Amino acid sequence: MPELRKDPIIGRWVIIATERGKRPSDFVSEAETTRGGFCPLCPGNEDKTPSEVYALRPEGSKPNTPGWSLRVVKNKFPALVAEKKLERGRTGVYDWMDGVGDHEVVIETAQHNARLSDLEVKEVEDVLWAYRDRICSLKGDSRFRYVIVFKNYGAAAGASLEHSHSQLIALPIVPKRVFEEMEGARTYYNYHNKCIFCDIIRQELIAKVRIIEEKNGVVTLAPFASRFPFETWIIPEAHSSSFEEMESYEGLAQALQGVLRRMDQVLDDPPYNFIIHTSHFGESQNEYYHWHLEIIPKLTKVAGFEWGTGFYINPTPPEEAARYLREVST
Amino acid sequence: MPELRKDPIIGRWVIIATERGKRPSDFVSEAETTRGGFCPLCPGNEDKTPSEVYALRPEGSKPNTPGWSLRVVKNKFPALVAEKKLERGRTGVYDWMDGVGDHEVVIETAQHNARLSDLEVKEVEDVLWAYRDRICSLKGDSRFRYVIVFKNYGAAAGASLEHSHSQLIALPIVPKRVFEEMEGARTYYNYHNKCIFCDIIRQELIAKVRIIEEKNGVVTLAPFASRFPFETWIIPEAHSSSFEEMESYEGLAQALQGVLRRMDQVLDDPPYNFIIHTSHFGESQNEYYHWHLEIIPKLTKVAGFEWGTGFYINPTPPEEAARYLREVST
Repeated sequence: MPELRKDPIIGRWVIIATERGKRPSDFVSEAETTRGGFCPLCPGNEDKTPSEVYALRPEGSKPNTPGWSLRVVKNKFPALVAEKKLERGRTGVYDWMDGVGDHEVVIETAQHNARLSDLEVKEVEDVLWAYRDRICSLKGDSRFRYVIVFKNYGAAAGASLEHSHSQLIALPIVPKRVFEEMEGARTYYNYHNKCIFCDIIRQELIAKVRIIEEKNGVVTLAPFASRFPFETWIIPEAHSSSFEEMESYEGLAQALQGVLRRMDQVLDDPPYNFIIHTSHFGESQNEYYHWHLEIIPKLTKVAGFEWGTGFYINPTPPEEAARYLREVST
Repeated sequence: MPELRKDPIIGRWVIIATERGKRPSDFVSEAETTRGGFCPLCPGNEDKTPSEVYALRPEGSKPNTPGWSLRVVKNKFPALVAEKKLERGRTGVYDWMDGVGDHEVVIETAQHNARLSDLEVKEVEDVLWAYRDRICSLKGDSRFRYVIVFKNYGAAAGASLEHSHSQLIALPIVPKRVFEEMEGARTYYNYHNKCIFCDIIRQELIAKVRIIEEKNGVVTLAPFASRFPFETWIIPEAHSSSFEEMESYEGLAQALQGVLRRMDQVLDDPPYNFIIHTSHFGESQNEYYHWHLEIIPKLTKVAGFEWGTGFYINPTPPEEAARYLREVST
């Protein structure tokens, strides 16, 4: 059973895999596992994954058989496990709790070689609806406080399987980063009586220098204080505190597919991570926090300076990144 | 002139290189620059670096000529620049300031092929004294609030030059990460009237499961909530709030050289970062914060989950990491 441990100084939680711990020799050829060979996510290999919890498949077809166009399964090697009652404890100065949670894999397409950016807008929309459905389902489990949705694309961005997929992890605690972001937005709201993201969108649409696209009620921009070259945020224009409470995902699917295609052209199929930033379950509906999606192309290495200070050196001004991405056609 | 920009939501600062911004094509072969060819840090090439600000060299020998065993120079491509008066400003919701600071490179040895772990204890001690001397000197500049000292070893850990070196960056602001750590320690102190690091050392020396070495008043351990496999902290046993106020660096040099040699054996010359965590200039001497050095071998990739949540999945329990490192001889 994995264990959640809290750093006693700054309160950051860490998941420690206590059971199948990696030995020194396990780290040597980690990058090699991604390419070629057998793919457990391909049609026909449904029995190689845990049973599906969601799928788009022809009416009448059986679960865990081919024919699907999208499939969500439990992760075979979960970071956190779903089975147990949550135990907590304290040993001297240290807090820990059982590594209870849930870990799912969204297989975005049946085609092994299609990237998310290769899919049609409708198919990307299906992926977003799958995220929504699974978040709503996991929200029903009273042990969980947050579901993080993210995608790692490319070995350099941490993907260990080539077949296009993303992941959901349900957590028994609100992660520090989410908490900080919501608290920062709340402080601004208390002072100005406005959502800071709404204010950012307003200011950016006037300045225009960091906007990549504005279309169908969705803004795609390079943030003012970008940590990484070509960091990009996708934000719905109308205030919305929770991803899972959107009524339509069409504009978002267009924006996501569009900007991934732009990055593809400008940066030549870069590895990337994206993460949905949304309100935690305790405050799903609020006036101060505005959900959005952050995309981080993996172009530079995070080194000692970043680890030590928690701040970043970005060699590409967001104004230039936005200009490059704006200038290509999709 | 680089620019410091503040994220308006969570208050994180970012350094944006506004002048020689990297274009998309600059990212393609970044990892290639490390090996082979001309080395600007080698003896005989003193004119290829900015003028030295500190050196260990034979009495009577001229600055910027060969013969030195350690040399500190200004960084030729600094992340922040030293020349200007510090201007600050606000544009709508955004805060920024001039990228004023200082950036120095510590060339740890004259030998191109010697790693820090290959040096004698006395030579490692010289490196630590050089850090101390430069911190004390930069502390005299009233624009600066903190000096971060760090080392990137190996291309995967962000090193762009092969010749063994570390870096110092003087900053006009206290980084968020440093501030959080000091505030966390202060909160504990206010409640318990004790330093949390002193309490951690006490508890770890009794439990013994995460201790790698205890020798000459210095403890080397794997922290309870390790973010990364084989993450290691070196902490002086006696309470000390600032690195630069130590009276001796011999025990620390032994611990650092020792644990790097252990990692070398267990992990086969791993890339790593180390960072000195010390009090900011405003509170150099205090009872609540305990300076220490954190070493992070670069064995796994940070991916979407970590970026999104600010917390980490560590596949190697620190108890196992400590056992591996303890069991090899140095």
